[in-house]
Amino acid sequence: MRATTHPVHGPSLAGTPAGERLDGLLLRRLAARIGPAGLRYALGHSTVADPAPVATLRFRDRRALAGLLLDPEVHFGDAYAEGRIEIEGDLVAALEAAYRTIADDGRAGPLAWLGTWRRHSLLRARSNVHRHYDIGNDFYALWLDRQLLYTSAYFESPELSLEEAQVAKMDHVCRKLGLRPGETVVEAGCGWGALALHMARRCGVRVRAWNVSHEQVVYARERARREGLADRVEFVEGDYREIRECCDAFVSVGMLEHVGRRSYEELGRVISGSLERAGGRGLLHFIGRDRPHPLNAWIRRRIFPGAYPPTLTEVGRGVLEPAGLSIVDVENLRAHYALTLRHWRERYERAVSDGRVGFDERFRRAWRLYLAGSEAAFRTGSLQLFQVTFAPSGLSTVPWTRRGLYADEAGLSWSAPRS
Amino acid sequence: MRATTHPVHGPSLAGTPAGERLDGLLLRRLAARIGPAGLRYALGHSTVADPAPVATLRFRDRRALAGLLLDPEVHFGDAYAEGRIEIEGDLVAALEAAYRTIADDGRAGPLAWLGTWRRHSLLRARSNVHRHYDIGNDFYALWLDRQLLYTSAYFESPELSLEEAQVAKMDHVCRKLGLRPGETVVEAGCGWGALALHMARRCGVRVRAWNVSHEQVVYARERARREGLADRVEFVEGDYREIRECCDAFVSVGMLEHVGRRSYEELGRVISGSLERAGGRGLLHFIGRDRPHPLNAWIRRRIFPGAYPPTLTEVGRGVLEPAGLSIVDVENLRAHYALTLRHWRERYERAVSDGRVGFDERFRRAWRLYLAGSEAAFRTGSLQLFQVTFAPSGLSTVPWTRRGLYADEAGLSWSAPRS
Repeated sequence: MRATTHPVHGPSLAGTPAGERLDGLLLRRLAARIGPAGLRYALGHSTVADPAPVATLRFRDRRALAGLLLDPEVHFGDAYAEGRIEIEGDLVAALEAAYRTIADDGRAGPLAWLGTWRRHSLLRARSNVHRHYDIGNDFYALWLDRQLLYTSAYFESPELSLEEAQVAKMDHVCRKLGLRPGETVVEAGCGWGALALHMARRCGVRVRAWNVSHEQVVYARERARREGLADRVEFVEGDYREIRECCDAFVSVGMLEHVGRRSYEELGRVISGSLERAGGRGLLHFIGRDRPHPLNAWIRRRIFPGAYPPTLTEVGRGVLEPAGLSIVDVENLRAHYALTLRHWRERYERAVSDGRVGFDERFRRAWRLYLAGSEAAFRTGSLQLFQVTFAPSGLSTVPWTRRGLYADEAGLSWSAPRS
Repeated sequence: MRATTHPVHGPSLAGTPAGERLDGLLLRRLAARIGPAGLRYALGHSTVADPAPVATLRFRDRRALAGLLLDPEVHFGDAYAEGRIEIEGDLVAALEAAYRTIADDGRAGPLAWLGTWRRHSLLRARSNVHRHYDIGNDFYALWLDRQLLYTSAYFESPELSLEEAQVAKMDHVCRKLGLRPGETVVEAGCGWGALALHMARRCGVRVRAWNVSHEQVVYARERARREGLADRVEFVEGDYREIRECCDAFVSVGMLEHVGRRSYEELGRVISGSLERAGGRGLLHFIGRDRPHPLNAWIRRRIFPGAYPPTLTEVGRGVLEPAGLSIVDVENLRAHYALTLRHWRERYERAVSDGRVGFDERFRRAWRLYLAGSEAAFRTGSLQLFQVTFAPSGLSTVPWTRRGLYADEAGLSWSAPRS
C-alpha cells in the first residue's frame, strides 16, 4: 500500500502540516481496519490506496472519516446518504470488495446481536413494517416489476426480463407446492398480493393472504376486485400469529426475515396447525446466512427495522423441528437475488435521473446504497436466498422426485401413491 | 381394546389361574405402553388386541413378554432374533404401526443419548466398521445389487430394478456435482468402491477413495484392476481424518451416520481443507432425522455400533457452518430408501429360503428384523435420507438452476459464468 499526502481540506486544520499528518494517519488506519479490499481512500488531496484499486472512497470532511473509524457499519450508510462520503467508480464493485474482505475476517461484535433477540410484539411488528412498506406504493412502483413483487425473482435463464423472472418465481413456488384446483392456500406476508392472485388464477386454488401493512392490503383488495378474483382470494389485514385455519398449502415469501427469532416457535406452531389436513405441505422463501450474523446495522436501523436473515440451521431448529415438520427440499437462489437487485437498481437509477423519485437527496442516496449493498451481499455470499419446502413429519405423499419442477408439467405431485 | 384370557403356557404358573391373570395383566400393560398401534399381543392362549389389528406379536414365554416391558428397544430385537417373539402377519406393516404410534408419543429417554456423544477414536471407528462390514463380502453379495452399493438407491420411477436404481443414484450424485473430465474427486467412506469406479468411468475424473474396512478396500482394488481403472482410482485404507489433499469435488455417501457428532467439526475442516481450490463443491448423502433422536438402541448395539442419524440442523451447525460451507441444495429421498430396503429384504428372504445364507438362525432373524425395521422407519418418516450439496461460502460458480439434473445433459454446471 502506498500513501501520498497532499495539502489537506479538513475543517479546522485545513492546509496545515498538522492537518495533513492527521488525515494521512486516519486514512491509513481506515485502510488497515478494512483490510486489503482493493480500494482507494481519499480526503482532500490525501490518498491511501491498495494495489490496483477498483474504486475510490472520497471523504468530504474529516468528521466523515473519523466517524467511519468509530462506528463503521452505521456511520458509513449515514455519511453516504448525506453525501459526506462519495464512491467514485462502480458502487457495487466497491461494496463487493469490502464485503469480501470483511467476510474473510469474520468479525461480529457481540453487542450487535442484542437488537435482534427481542421478541417482536404485534405492535412493533406492525410499526416495523409500516416504516418500510408504507413509504408509499408509488415509490415502489417506480422500480419494482409491474406486479410489485418485492422479493427475489427466479431467472430460469439470466436473460429473462424482470417481469418474466417474477412470474417464473411465482410459477416455481406453485410447482414446488404442486397446487391443484380446489385446494386452499394460506399465505403469510403477502406484500401487494401478486403471488396470492397468481396462485388463484394459475392453479385454481382459494387463498387467504395475510399482511399487517394497511396500504398493501388496500392495494391488493382493489387489484383482486379489478381482476375478478375477489371471491377466491381474501386479503386479511392481520399478523401471521392470528392465523387459525386449515389449508392444503402454507406459503410465505419474504416474511421470515421480519419475524424475530424469539417468535420462530410460534411461527412453527401456526404452520403445523394450518397443515393438519392429510397432504399438507408448505414453503418458506427467505433471505438467510451461511452462519449466524445480524443484518448490516445501518440497513437494520435505517431501512429494515427488526430484520434478521437466519441460517438454515436456525430455521430448522427454531421453526420446523419443534413443529414436527420435515424438510423435503432446499434450494439456494442467492445468485437470483443478486440479479433481481441489479434490475431494481437500474430501474431505480433511471427513475432518479428522470426526476421521478421524490423525497430528498439523502433518502435517494440511502436507497441507492441499500440496493447496491444488497446486490454486493448476495454476490459475495454474505447473504443467501433459501426456498425450503416441507411437510408434516411422516406424511406419505411427498413427491417421488423433483423432475416435475423442470418438466413442462404441472409441477410436483404431493398426492400420488408411492411405490 | 378387548382382553381375552385363556389357559396359559408360562413356565412355572402354566395352566394355573394365577399364571393366567399375570399373563393377561402383562399383555394389557404392554398394549397400553405401546399405545393404539393396531396390533394383537398373544402369549399362549391369552390375547389382547387393538381394534382391527394388522399383525400379532406372539410371545413364546413369559420372560420374553416381561423383558419387553423392562427394556423395549433392545429386548425386542434380541427376543425376536432368538425366536422368543414371533410376528404373525406382515413384519414391515407391524413395525410401521408400532413406529407411527411411538413417533406420535415422541418419547426419548435422556440416557439413550449418552452412547452417541462420545468421540469416535480412530481405533473405535475401525472396530465399529469391522463389526458390520467385515461380516464377509459374500453375505452382502447375496442381497445387495451386483455392484454392492450398501446405501439408498435413487428410483427415477418406482418401477426401476434395484440394479438400475443404484446406477441412477450414482448418476444423480455425479450430476449434482457436475463432474467434468480431468477433475479430481475425494470420496470419504467408499464401501466396495462402486461409486468411485463409476465416477472415473462415466465422468473421466480421478478419484482417491478412502475406507477403513480392509476387506472392502481389498475387494475394491481388485475390481479397479480388473476393470482397468487402477490408474485413475486409488483406494486408500484409512480414516477420513487422515485426508490431506485438494480436489474439485468431495463426496461421501453413507459415512456421516458413522461419524460421531463430536467429530463433526473435524470432518468440516477436512472437507473445507480439500475444497480450497476455486470451483470446489461437495455432497453428503446420509440417513437423518427430522428432530434429534438416537438410532434405535437395538440396531445401535447389535447391528451398527456407534451409528447416529443426524438432523439437517446438526449437520449444518456441526459440519458445514464452522467450515465456512454454504448449502446449495438439499433433497430428502426417504421414500427411495424405503423402496431400496424392500428390494434388499426380498432378495435376502429368497437367499434364506434357498439356504444360501449361512450363520445361525439367530443371526438370520436379527438381519430380517433390521431390514424390515429400517424399511418401516423410512416409510413412517422416523428416518430420513438427505443429500446435501454445498460449496465454500461465496463461491461464484454455483449452478444457475437445477434444471440440468433433470434434462438429458451432463448434470449441473459449476463453472459457467453467472449473468
